[in-house]
Parts: sequence; structure tokens; C-alpha cells
Amino acid sequence: MASLSVSPAQLASALGAVRETNPLVQCLTNIVVAQWTANSLLSLGAAPAMVDNVQEAALFATFASGVLINTGTPYAETAEAMSLAAASAVKSGTPWVLDPVAAGGLPWRTEIARQLLGNSAPQIIRGNGSEILGLAGGAGGKGVDSTDPAEAALAAANAIALEYNTVVAISGEVDHITDGTRLVRISNGHPLMTQVTGVGCALGSIMAAFAGVEKDYLVAASAATATLTVAGDIAAEGNPAPGTFAVRLLDALNTITPAQLAERVVLS
Amino acid sequence: MASLSVSPAQLASALGAVRETNPLVQCLTNIVVAQWTANSLLSLGAAPAMVDNVQEAALFATFASGVLINTGTPYAETAEAMSLAAASAVKSGTPWVLDPVAAGGLPWRTEIARQLLGNSAPQIIRGNGSEILGLAGGAGGKGVDSTDPAEAALAAANAIALEYNTVVAISGEVDHITDGTRLVRISNGHPLMTQVTGVGCALGSIMAAFAGVEKDYLVAASAATATLTVAGDIAAEGNPAPGTFAVRLLDALNTITPAQLAERVVLS
Amino acid sequence: MASLSVSPAQLASALGAVRETNPLVQCLTNIVVAQWTANSLLSLGAAPAMVDNVQEAALFATFASGVLINTGTPYAETAEAMSLAAASAVKSGTPWVLDPVAAGGLPWRTEIARQLLGNSAPQIIRGNGSEILGLAGGAGGKGVDSTDPAEAALAAANAIALEYNTVVAISGEVDHITDGTRLVRISNGHPLMTQVTGVGCALGSIMAAFAGVEKDYLVAASAATATLTVAGDIAAEGNPAPGTFAVRLLDALNTITPAQLAERVVLS
Repeated sequence: MASLSVSPAQLASALGAVRETNPLVQCLTNIVVAQWTANSLLSLGAAPAMVDNVQEAALFATFASGVLINTGTPYAETAEAMSLAAASAVKSGTPWVLDPVAAGGLPWRTEIARQLLGNSAPQIIRGNGSEILGLAGGAGGKGVDSTDPAEAALAAANAIALEYNTVVAISGEVDHITDGTRLVRISNGHPLMTQVTGVGCALGSIMAAFAGVEKDYLVAASAATATLTVAGDIAAEGNPAPGTFAVRLLDALNTITPAQLAERVVLS
Repeated sequence: MASLSVSPAQLASALGAVRETNPLVQCLTNIVVAQWTANSLLSLGAAPAMVDNVQEAALFATFASGVLINTGTPYAETAEAMSLAAASAVKSGTPWVLDPVAAGGLPWRTEIARQLLGNSAPQIIRGNGSEILGLAGGAGGKGVDSTDPAEAALAAANAIALEYNTVVAISGEVDHITDGTRLVRISNGHPLMTQVTGVGCALGSIMAAFAGVEKDYLVAASAATATLTVAGDIAAEGNPAPGTFAVRLLDALNTITPAQLAERVVLS
Repeated sequence: MASLSVSPAQLASALGAVRETNPLVQCLTNIVVAQWTANSLLSLGAAPAMVDNVQEAALFATFASGVLINTGTPYAETAEAMSLAAASAVKSGTPWVLDPVAAGGLPWRTEIARQLLGNSAPQIIRGNGSEILGLAGGAGGKGVDSTDPAEAALAAANAIALEYNTVVAISGEVDHITDGTRLVRISNGHPLMTQVTGVGCALGSIMAAFAGVEKDYLVAASAATATLTVAGDIAAEGNPAPGTFAVRLLDALNTITPAQLAERVVLS
């Protein structure tokens, strides 16, 4: 077995650190998933705060443990708040995560995401294959679902990671997380995760929580992905329908232990 | 038994078509029910996208399978996006559904709904009795709940249907769906559906999904209503409290089969 | 045992009145908890309406049974709507509840909350200890969670209550509710209530529902607190994880009877 870029023990340790320190995560996210994101963070053991107005976004980013910016339902005002929050996060050393929802598919939000990347590069970018390709200049998908597998976006992800000194996490059947040099592949997770809105969006916020406690952002992004996808495996046991699955996923985010994470994560 | 305007087999066939084609539904809806609506569509087998800003709403309507416009929490910016999306949908042949929440009760949103109707008539209008009466020029109710039974709004619904060449679906204890000539009455559903926010709003989005696969919009609106109300019957078995009922309703939207739909729907 | 400011029978009676009259509660609240708040009110037996735009907020406040204003995610437009709704509520005699989320921690929203208080004093103010201290001029907490116990804010709460002729409810391990003269302490509730987003925000809306049926606002705020925290006790039985707990809490809000409330509430 070749040596892995991250070890199960490192991921477990990062989860333990989130539980101990209860990181404060500022979310500038979309109106569809705000509640789900907050509940995911609370279940995990982090503290959510959805501060996304132009008056307060920059200030809050100076004392948050991590910031998530998600372009799912941008408006003129919240897009400006995103720009202010990202700049403030970079200036004050707060790690932030970009989730460029539907980048490549819709020109306005693609431009928002690219300007955020160009002006105030995040520590982590999370998207599906189509979004990462779209952010890199490709056509992207038309909706929120990926039409490209994670593997197809890996070259684009590596290029972005190296150019902007960031970590790019491509969600898919096998999640791919790269800093341009090191690659982590995680094979956990279940198709039911795509039948509940906001699971991917919540992953971005969970990455921001982990980035608040783990400064190797490849490890942070990988630990967040592993925690959510192993929780997904646990929640999917017995193959429930989506309503029940969603409840169990919040439960599993709360009950999963670092030891369970280390035991069940499938890395390659 | 008199011949019915639609048959159980037609409704079942439409549900099968939704499951097969996974229609992309653009929702311009309210902040209360956005998550519930997205989860309802996902459970059903459709793909939600809440694109409701002025920069992107018109573009998205050109390639969506169907569009929902719901006036539950309008703001100046999203109301403008509604107008742009409706015009674009009509121009590009994308069917769209109007849910005129609280029309008649509040002058501003009543005017928004009437302008949408007058400028870019939808393929389907869904509301409760008070809202349909309000849209037609009556006083309507003061809140989101109907103070008029569906039957009381049938004459107004027929008039709107004929004037605007549209289908009007009046939700109530017995749902009434009319194109001005043909009438479908569906007696499924359970009072618990009124104890969970957004069930009616989700119905509008489900109609947009069905309109994406079935061009006889009376059939589309009827199939959507039948699917949701039979799912409601299934979810209400054992008479759970509302929190549990909501979870089971999402489950039932996912598990209900075309055959179950045909068997359980009560048409008259 | 010293005489209590409110009796279990008074609280039970208020719950019965909510169930009988189905009060219409206008909520100007945040995007995170809008759905949860609406579902909490529906489960309880009240009728929610999230009317928070500048065109309609004042009008709706004239016929609502009660109004909630929550500063969780203020924007320029909704903040103006809050000001209009509060003024209209006061003018038309509709009781309203202020939930000054994160007051003291963020200057802009602190100013919004203080202007609402100064210009159109509410009948009830609900917050955690940090928020009440922040509203009174202290530093407050940085996020949405309290860093001060309820007791620490009691002097500030009494001062606000007397100056503005209002009731102040401080949420915490022991809830403290004061009108400046009378004090009610309620010891129900469970730590799980802090692991679901919006439980405190929903309490503000439930207070607005009770204020619509009970004009002794100390009793109204106490009955709302008792109802939600006893429901929390019921939902927490067996110590479920947060996803399951949230579902059970909505269930318990629906099934709790006035007799159960009187039997289980712990007053001091």
C-alpha cells in the first residue's frame, strides 16, 4: 500500500479538536440551506452564525474561527457582503471556504466566484466536478447537480490549487481533495446524500469549522469530507427514504466519534 | 359513473415520466419554504434550483423544465426577478406555475400576482379558495390560510382559466382543478398537511415538475395534486404529530409508485 | 413556599386560549429559522405569516394577533420593514415581541434593536443573558450563544422593563421573566434545545402567539416559555440525538396539553 497523504488518525484528531473547541463558523450561504447548514454545524459540535449583510459581514469575519461563502442564491446585497467578508477574512487571517454553487452554468455567479478567488483567495474551495471545471473556465453544469465526475475535474483542481495556493475539494462518488501536490481520495458516502438539499452546502460549512482548528487545510478539508460521508454511511444503514435519512444524518453528525471516523473512512 | 376528465392511469403515467426524466424546476419562492420545497422535489425525483435574482432568473427560465413563482415573501428585488422569469418562460416555451400566496389579502402582492397573470400568463395557477378569489378581484383572506372552501372559488377559477388559457388548481379538502371546460376533483389528503408549513407551496413546485413532462396541463396539475395528497394519506397513517408527519411526507413522496397512485387516488 | 408571580393554572389557561383562538402571528425573522418558526407555531396551534417587506409589514401588523421581530439576519430592507411593523403594531394596539439576536456583539444590529426599543417599545423582549446585557449597553456576546447566565442579566432586564414598561424574558438554564416588579423563574428545558437552530427564535414567536390571547404579558411570556421548555423536556426523553430531538420537539409542541403543562412546569 502506498503511503497516503493523510492518515485516519489525523482525521480523527481533527474531529476531536472541533468537538473540544466548538469553532464559530460564519456562513454567507443560500436561503435554501441556511437552516440545514446551521443544524449540521450544531450537530457536529460547531457554532454557526449566518452574518451575511454588508454592514456586519467584514467585522464578523475578523473574529470567526472560519468563514463559508456559498453562491447558491446570490443577490446584489449579499454578493457585496461576500466580497467584504472574504477580504476581511484574508486580512485578519481567518480561513475561509468558497463553495461556487453552479459556477460555469450561470455567468453572474461564475463572475462572483472568480472575483472572490482572484481578489481574496480562500483556503479551501469545495464544489462538484462541474463547478470546479466551471470555476476554472469551463462550461459547468446548468443546475446544482454535477454532470461531470470528480476525476474529470482533477486537472483543473490541481491548476487552481497551485495558482491560488489553496486546497480544492471535488465532491463526487469518490471525493478528491488536492493542494496541487498531495491528493486525498475518500470513497465513503451514499447516493441518499444527493436526495436531501444542502448536504454538499453543509460540507462547505463543516470544512470552515475544521479549518478553524486544523491549519493543514488539506487535512481540514479531508477530515470534514470524511466526517460527513462516514456519517452518511451510518445514516444510510437500512436504506431509509430521504426524509428519514436527513434526520439520521443530523443524528450521525452528532454521534460519530473520532474512533469511528478512523475505523470507517476509506482513503486511497 | 360519469366519465372523468382524467384517468388514474394518466396520473400514474405522468408520475412515471417525472421519475424517468428528473425535470429541472426553477423556483422563485419564499424564504420560509425554500428548503422544504427543494426537499419535496428531490424526494419526488425532480431537480430543484432556486434561482431568484434579477441577474439570472430570466436566463435560467430558458432551460428549466418548469418554473414556479410563489409570492409568499416578495421583496422589491425578487418581485422584479419574478417578472423577468415569467416573461422569459413564456418567450422560451417553458411552462410555469403561479402560486399567488395571500392574493386578495395584501394589496402589494395581489398586484404582483395580477401583473404576472396579465403580462405573462402561466400554464397553471395554484392557490386556496381565498387566493383564487383574491386573484380574481375578491377580498381574499388576510393570512396564508383559506377562509373559503375550494368550491366557493370554482366560478372565479373557471373565469380565470378561460380568460388566460390556463389551468387553475384550487387546494382544499377536495381539490378542484379546472381548465375552464374540464374539471377534476381529488378527495385525497389529510388535515395534517395544513400543520406543516409549505405543503401547499411545495405542491406548486411539484406542478412545475409535472408540467415539464406532461403538456396537457390539466393532467399535469392533477397528477401533481394526486401524488402529493396520496403521499399525504400514506404519511398520515397512524395519525402522527406534525414533526413526524413532515418526515414521513418526504418519505412518501419518494416511495409512492405510479401503481399506488392509480390505486389510491379518489377522483370525481 | 413563597407565593409565585404566576401559577401553573394561569399558564395552562393561556395555552388553552392559544389552542382555541389560533392567533395569527406575523414574523419578521431571520432566513435561518423561518421554516422552523412557522412549523413551531403551526404545531402549537397558531397561524404564522412571515410578512417582512416594507410594502406590507405595517399593514399586516394592524390585523395580526401578535408580531415577532427578530434581528438574526437583518438587511437594509428588512430592517426598515421591522421599524415600520413595530410602529404600526404600537399604533394599532397589536402586541409585539423583540428578539434582539446578537445585540451587543455587532454594532449595526444593536443599533437596530435599540431604535426599535426606543421608538416603539415592545410588550415583550426575549433574549439570552448576553443579548439583554448588550441591549442595555453592555458588550454582549460575539455570536448567537450567550456567554452570560440569565441571572447575570437580571438587573439589566429589570431596568429595561421599568424604563420601557415591558416584560423581559432572559433565556438560560433557568429562564427569568420579569416586568421589573414581578419575577418568574422556570427551570424546565434541556441542553438539546441549544443543539437545534432556532429554538430560541421560535420561543419569541410563541410569545407573540401567547401575547395575542393573554394581556398580562408576564403571564404570556411565562406561558410561552413554559410550553416550549416542557415540550423540550418531553422531546428529550431518552436523550435522542439532535435530528431526532428536533422532530420530537415539533411533535411535543402539538401534543402537550394544558394539564401536562401545569403538572410539569417548575416555577420558582
